[in-house]
Amino acid sequence: MRMLVVGSVAFDDIQTPFGIKKNVLGGAASHFSIAAAPLIAPKIIAVVGNDFPEKYFTYFEKFGIDTQGIEKSDGKTFHWSGYYEHDMAIAHTRTTELGAFATFEPKLTEEDKLRQVLFLANIDPVIQYKVLKQMKNVQLVGFDSMNFWIESKRKDVWKMVKEADIVFLNDAEVRMLAEEASLIKAAKIIQKKGPSAVIVKKGEHGVTGVTKDEIFVSPAYPTEEVLDPTGAGDSFAGGCMSYLVANTQPGKHITSDILRKAVSWGSAVASFAVEGFSTDGVAKATRKNIETRMSVIKKLTAF
Amino acid sequence: MRMLVVGSVAFDDIQTPFGIKKNVLGGAASHFSIAAAPLIAPKIIAVVGNDFPEKYFTYFEKFGIDTQGIEKSDGKTFHWSGYYEHDMAIAHTRTTELGAFATFEPKLTEEDKLRQVLFLANIDPVIQYKVLKQMKNVQLVGFDSMNFWIESKRKDVWKMVKEADIVFLNDAEVRMLAEEASLIKAAKIIQKKGPSAVIVKKGEHGVTGVTKDEIFVSPAYPTEEVLDPTGAGDSFAGGCMSYLVANTQPGKHITSDILRKAVSWGSAVASFAVEGFSTDGVAKATRKNIETRMSVIKKLTAF
Repeated sequence: MRMLVVGSVAFDDIQTPFGIKKNVLGGAASHFSIAAAPLIAPKIIAVVGNDFPEKYFTYFEKFGIDTQGIEKSDGKTFHWSGYYEHDMAIAHTRTTELGAFATFEPKLTEEDKLRQVLFLANIDPVIQYKVLKQMKNVQLVGFDSMNFWIESKRKDVWKMVKEADIVFLNDAEVRMLAEEASLIKAAKIIQKKGPSAVIVKKGEHGVTGVTKDEIFVSPAYPTEEVLDPTGAGDSFAGGCMSYLVANTQPGKHITSDILRKAVSWGSAVASFAVEGFSTDGVAKATRKNIETRMSVIKKLTAF
Repeated sequence: MRMLVVGSVAFDDIQTPFGIKKNVLGGAASHFSIAAAPLIAPKIIAVVGNDFPEKYFTYFEKFGIDTQGIEKSDGKTFHWSGYYEHDMAIAHTRTTELGAFATFEPKLTEEDKLRQVLFLANIDPVIQYKVLKQMKNVQLVGFDSMNFWIESKRKDVWKMVKEADIVFLNDAEVRMLAEEASLIKAAKIIQKKGPSAVIVKKGEHGVTGVTKDEIFVSPAYPTEEVLDPTGAGDSFAGGCMSYLVANTQPGKHITSDILRKAVSWGSAVASFAVEGFSTDGVAKATRKNIETRMSVIKKLTAF
């Protein structure tokens, strides 16, 4: 199966207790795609400004990522500036300059519309829905969002949730969307609206998954030093989706075992992501070293 | 092996989103002992005021708990009043009236001093140390503390950590004590001071354990509705310590497998504790239903 990811490709200014980086490659689609690449390099649908250097196209292509859908527009590339204090679970935004992304209207080719797997990274749910409705043969839809959209376009987020197969949200977003303080209850409320699985991302506390049939838990890889958590959630989703695609037949039911392994694969990939700034960490993930970390994760909870 | 627990027996006023209870049985030693009882009912060393009703002695004894060490003093019983908002991970204290507990000097009999297992629940670390130094043949020492003591008597807390076998602290306390933001690094710093294991309690996010040889993780039981989290940590410790005592030979090394199972047993016991106010929840835990929940916990992370 071939995978399409729709989302941001951006510049980031990042400050963490471990350093400051300016104008580095960022954006959900960038992190997602590089994280997926060891198994399935996707095609990116995004828009950048005319300030976006050619070298990043070459960089993406090195991973086998299809950059034909990254439109070069007039104006500037989406630019996020933020910082983390010692609690690296919380990103503090300094500025968000949408640039060319402000008027982003994803353009799908006829070939794109025939892709079987779609990941809708965190963008306006109205745009996500428009993209989804163009797809003619999609078998697996991953969906991400954020507090901003849940607050400002709650109905549109729910509309997307109902159409998605795998919903990726963090614990605060799950509680906010379901308007329910109990995390398990909240995830169940969301799952009952339609998706096969709600994957609750909890950072260093790992992942809780809720399906129609069960609840499962996957611990995070026990990373001692997080250099930069930016994009960790997107990298997790990229790893997870790529594992599902690589291990499932088109249109077939995703088994509990495959889903659990996919989440664990995603956690292993994300553990590389946080070890470097920008996409430097996740770029070091290979099938082999991901497998090694996945077996560490498996052993963490064994008894 | 026989177990001694030194800590508070108290009255609590508790308000949660699910109800208000006044003057109910509380205190770390109470929760701990009832949680331990399905495997090993301990002897409690504590002090209460002359307002403490006889019915609670009978109640403890119903679980096989030895109440001979609960001294009745002049004055009032330790009284905590607090509330929880929707984030039940955070207890807000309204008032703490130490009463008879303010001048608590645990009195050990000669027989007490020969006990092989000691759990020092969260009290002044200077008092904990005094108790420990009276023990003549202790094989296994569990230790708990809190932010208040870490801030006010840091050196005394470290002194206790060095002498303890199993250190029970929550994630914030571990970071605070080690003065290190990375949880894994912080737990390792504490473990290196002497204890066999540092058991990091993370509430709904489960437990991270750090020993000389390894890191392990145990998820929490997926409880949908927490009625009252008061005493959940003490109940966890009670379950965990009782499992260790029931499954280890005196003076023998605690294996990784036994420790992991003990933590999982403790999590299962704690899941009962949060289902009722005061000790009503944990009182419903039996060997059989704890085992059932332990197997649910085991399956949560299996792949």
